Amino acid sequence: VGRLRLAVLGMGVMGTNHAIVYQGLAEAQLAAAVETSPERADDVRNRFGVPVFGSVEQLIAEAEFDAASICLPDQAHVEPALALAKAGKHLLVEKPLATTLAGCNAIISAAESAGVKLMVGFTLRFDPRYYSVHEAVSQGEIGEPVYMYARRNNLNSGARRLAGRVTLPFFLQVHDIDAMRWMGGAEVTRVYACGVRKVLNDLGVDDAVVSTLQFSDGSIGCVESNWILPDSLPGRFDFRLEVVGTKGRATIDLESQGATVHNGQQMREVDPMFRPVLYGQQPLVLREELHHFVKCVLEDKTPVVGGADGRAATAVALAIEESLRLGQPVDVKYS
Amino acid sequence: VGRLRLAVLGMGVMGTNHAIVYQGLAEAQLAAAVETSPERADDVRNRFGVPVFGSVEQLIAEAEFDAASICLPDQAHVEPALALAKAGKHLLVEKPLATTLAGCNAIISAAESAGVKLMVGFTLRFDPRYYSVHEAVSQGEIGEPVYMYARRNNLNSGARRLAGRVTLPFFLQVHDIDAMRWMGGAEVTRVYACGVRKVLNDLGVDDAVVSTLQFSDGSIGCVESNWILPDSLPGRFDFRLEVVGTKGRATIDLESQGATVHNGQQMREVDPMFRPVLYGQQPLVLREELHHFVKCVLEDKTPVVGGADGRAATAVALAIEESLRLGQPVDVKYS
Amino acid sequence: VGRLRLAVLGMGVMGTNHAIVYQGLAEAQLAAAVETSPERADDVRNRFGVPVFGSVEQLIAEAEFDAASICLPDQAHVEPALALAKAGKHLLVEKPLATTLAGCNAIISAAESAGVKLMVGFTLRFDPRYYSVHEAVSQGEIGEPVYMYARRNNLNSGARRLAGRVTLPFFLQVHDIDAMRWMGGAEVTRVYACGVRKVLNDLGVDDAVVSTLQFSDGSIGCVESNWILPDSLPGRFDFRLEVVGTKGRATIDLESQGATVHNGQQMREVDPMFRPVLYGQQPLVLREELHHFVKCVLEDKTPVVGGADGRAATAVALAIEESLRLGQPVDVKYS
Amino acid sequence: VGRLRLAVLGMGVMGTNHAIVYQGLAEAQLAAAVETSPERADDVRNRFGVPVFGSVEQLIAEAEFDAASICLPDQAHVEPALALAKAGKHLLVEKPLATTLAGCNAIISAAESAGVKLMVGFTLRFDPRYYSVHEAVSQGEIGEPVYMYARRNNLNSGARRLAGRVTLPFFLQVHDIDAMRWMGGAEVTRVYACGVRKVLNDLGVDDAVVSTLQFSDGSIGCVESNWILPDSLPGRFDFRLEVVGTKGRATIDLESQGATVHNGQQMREVDPMFRPVLYGQQPLVLREELHHFVKCVLEDKTPVVGGADGRAATAVALAIEESLRLGQPVDVKYS
Repeated sequence: VGRLRLAVLGMGVMGTNHAIVYQGLAEAQLAAAVETSPERADDVRNRFGVPVFGSVEQLIAEAEFDAASICLPDQAHVEPALALAKAGKHLLVEKPLATTLAGCNAIISAAESAGVKLMVGFTLRFDPRYYSVHEAVSQGEIGEPVYMYARRNNLNSGARRLAGRVTLPFFLQVHDIDAMRWMGGAEVTRVYACGVRKVLNDLGVDDAVVSTLQFSDGSIGCVESNWILPDSLPGRFDFRLEVVGTKGRATIDLESQGATVHNGQQMREVDPMFRPVLYGQQPLVLREELHHFVKCVLEDKTPVVGGADGRAATAVALAIEESLRLGQPVDVKYS
Repeated sequence: VGRLRLAVLGMGVMGTNHAIVYQGLAEAQLAAAVETSPERADDVRNRFGVPVFGSVEQLIAEAEFDAASICLPDQAHVEPALALAKAGKHLLVEKPLATTLAGCNAIISAAESAGVKLMVGFTLRFDPRYYSVHEAVSQGEIGEPVYMYARRNNLNSGARRLAGRVTLPFFLQVHDIDAMRWMGGAEVTRVYACGVRKVLNDLGVDDAVVSTLQFSDGSIGCVESNWILPDSLPGRFDFRLEVVGTKGRATIDLESQGATVHNGQQMREVDPMFRPVLYGQQPLVLREELHHFVKCVLEDKTPVVGGADGRAATAVALAIEESLRLGQPVDVKYS
Repeated sequence: VGRLRLAVLGMGVMGTNHAIVYQGLAEAQLAAAVETSPERADDVRNRFGVPVFGSVEQLIAEAEFDAASICLPDQAHVEPALALAKAGKHLLVEKPLATTLAGCNAIISAAESAGVKLMVGFTLRFDPRYYSVHEAVSQGEIGEPVYMYARRNNLNSGARRLAGRVTLPFFLQVHDIDAMRWMGGAEVTRVYACGVRKVLNDLGVDDAVVSTLQFSDGSIGCVESNWILPDSLPGRFDFRLEVVGTKGRATIDLESQGATVHNGQQMREVDPMFRPVLYGQQPLVLREELHHFVKCVLEDKTPVVGGADGRAATAVALAIEESLRLGQPVDVKYS
Repeated sequence: VGRLRLAVLGMGVMGTNHAIVYQGLAEAQLAAAVETSPERADDVRNRFGVPVFGSVEQLIAEAEFDAASICLPDQAHVEPALALAKAGKHLLVEKPLATTLAGCNAIISAAESAGVKLMVGFTLRFDPRYYSVHEAVSQGEIGEPVYMYARRNNLNSGARRLAGRVTLPFFLQVHDIDAMRWMGGAEVTRVYACGVRKVLNDLGVDDAVVSTLQFSDGSIGCVESNWILPDSLPGRFDFRLEVVGTKGRATIDLESQGATVHNGQQMREVDPMFRPVLYGQQPLVLREELHHFVKCVLEDKTPVVGGADGRAATAVALAIEESLRLGQPVDVKYS
């Protein structure tokens, strides 16, 4: 088994993290990147020592690589994915897979036709806390799921950085929509969502959205998210998931992760999973995710989270956005 | 200042707690009780040494007392309240004030006409954690409220004991509806609710209900509750409230209250506030509540939570129940 | 039963709290105070509307009262206590009872001779968390105690305010020494203590002291305390107790007490027990303590924590201080 | 860079974990094992598909490998380590390095003479929570360390399994002794320790030991450990570390790690770090540790935790055991 050669498309925050992780994996090799900003492209060349191209076409024409991470803006996933699949490159697409059902379908079909792997970057599938709870729930430890609750709250500075380019349902809630599908094994059939705009009105996005989900097995769920938490909040985010079953209950609460530092002025919770730790290495959870992708390609296995999962989350997020517009419950359309 | 003479109507779990607290207050004196079950009436006579009557009429005719706690079933508050008010007795009515708007209005009018005090038993107003957060929020510490989330989850055995006589919105959610009105200072204008029945189907009640609230100031809220938690859960309940404001955040989380005991077989969280503690005395929070009522009567002051608060919570709970039936959002009707 | 008339000696932080609580108790009446600072005496007259005297002798000569709280500096408890007992006044002495064994013995004898109640202000006996754990432990829920651990850590500003007038063993550790005696029902026979001075060197006191205790029943304990925590610490203190028994374990952890407020700049944990809460009333735990004292006097009962408890804690604190000086383990001398 | 061939000596719990991790690392290859129990040796052959030898001599004579993990009983580390070093094999020795100073010195000298890597298995150095706190402390975020507290409490069943073959200081406290040396950058000069025997008296070991440490920079520490926690404790262990500095504070608390499962009968805390998680893979922390060792050998770097660290922890543990015997403080002897 040799090393998988990888390209990363889009060298923003997430793309850079992908590149860092690929460089550190024994089975992988960062081969190239795509970045349209000339300044950032230079930084990437210096930092990672790989060729950086200004377009996907150029990447495909000139670089030697086996697979690619698509870390471009949400609305810009489809065309690069189609081109890469056509060129026989395996695909890891950051969530959301695409922001339209047609886009999702096109990517899924292209990957199938080309016979390449397609994985969607739903990080929670590789977080040991979520994974352990999923194992317990899927093995029936809590009985049959009855009610699920998820929270995914971020700092205000994060929303400001994104500057209205993405919505709460697509940026935050898709994570928990996917987690609930994974935990409960049922599909979302109907949603109702309610939003509020006070702090981020100037960006044209909601401060907070609370979405109620009805599942195909009769269970219900609530996904709550905001991105207006104070920047000095010790935990810097507030992520939770709870699954109440017919006989038991499982909980995840990541506001504290076991360690704090108070420097005399402020307290902060240590994040041992999502930020780079341990002697200069990579974020643990993202490394698990990308390692899984690399091994699936090298060993010709199917990733645990694929195109159909990406499409389902997009379908639910689209229904949530429609419900926000209409002020009414909305049936989820999957095709 | 003398001692206030009190009658307690309905000697179930809550009525008994009221009687215990009144007996322990220096400013109060338990004068009589009403209980229709002959067996339980005998127990009350033996335990508290007060006369026990079989009806409100008999109580009013024969007992000497100044004020009464109405701890009867939810649907049976109105007529006794009207009779007591007419007889000039001050009223502490357990939540919900009544289960119809007409009932609430009748009680409020009767108390006003008779010039008696009317207080509703919303315990959270006397819980130091909720009180402290209310103080912070109302003083603007977190800015303007944007989003509120409340959870009120109980054990399965509690739901079994209530045996379908009461619904989740009226039994649990009214607490948080009142708390959100109190915290945010705005009224609920519109609700959407979704329920699920798997475990308690035989009782004809929902296992869990999640309600989305829209407030008159544009803020939104989510009230989530169930009563299917495993009976061996260490905390025995799971109560939370979070208020996210334009500049900060306040949280209440009572699943742990600072102390645990593991007896070699099971762990339990200690409840220092709602259960009797401290050298045989009474539950702290309920004592604060009843003490407030007694002092308001003795010192001729207006209770901090009155008839209008009771009516508002009932109006919202009725809208939630209508939304559950219709599967649609519902405007709250206040008159 | 009438109202108990109380005098408070020493109107610093604790004395003021005692006065506030006595004023709020139905069974009590604040009758007088002693305060040597003329300015502070004026404040007390204005705030509480009671006569303020410059000395205990004057108080005894001129005021009408039944009982007194001694909230004077640690070293100044003995003579006032003796004079008050001789005058037939019941005594609540703030911890430590006295800073010498001879002083403790003198107070105990004087109270016995005069036939007055003597109670020592060990607040933890009236904290519902500690009380509940004590109940569980004393009823054998965790088996026989094997190991106890206590932490009592305070803010740096608190140590600065005390300015070296009191030591860690006498200011903080006596609380936990008493709690361990109460929990385990055994006496401390031998101690070893170790201190460190870096931050508070200029005040001539230790930053932190860790004391190891051996008990008469073979169990052991560790009492750890410091007063150099950063002032902006959300919890503002860090108090813990753990009792590990032959079959179970009990824990108390008060760094969080169930509610937080983040005002956009800083997060703070809400303290619902030790600080004034609930519609202008008094700290809950101190009110329980003083209420107990008042009722013991009015109903002629023995307080749950008396002179012998005060002396035992002082004996252990003295041994800890000797061990700190010698760098060796020291046997506790009780007489 | 090729794959490192590894042998594991001692296929008990820890040795098996080492073998699992080596099999999963891309840069490593499990080459052989040593196990004296014939039954267990057969299991290892079947499970891992590698040759299993009955002695170190046989391993060295017959197997091809580059490095070895010594997971033998604490007292049996020295001779195999010397033989392996002499044969030019790199060494990862499970903690404690050895149970005597002479043993530590012999291993260190042998590794130096042979020019092989020597790493000691102090897992906490590779736990992201401890690592992050170490980074904060070593970069001065909390000022200069003043006081450190560590707890390492295990289940009773763990102590029963070990059956008196190992002591608390060597089994549990060495972890925290090493962590404190690492955090504070100072050496332990003097210790006092106190133990208690009630539950495990039949095994001839202490139930709990509390050790007070004095460091070369004037700071102090307390290491507390027991192994009598009830087996049904949700967290299954209770590990903590706190560093109080001249200006701040850092804490680690692993009793909860962010996720729980209640199966209707019992609640358990999920352990995402020490137990195998994520699609059949290995414990995260141990994998980090062994990965570090493998990379140090392959890339000819010095492991972050080596022979001198192992010797220091052993020296302190020996002084603790002497203090337990003498009932007196003891100076640590490092040579």
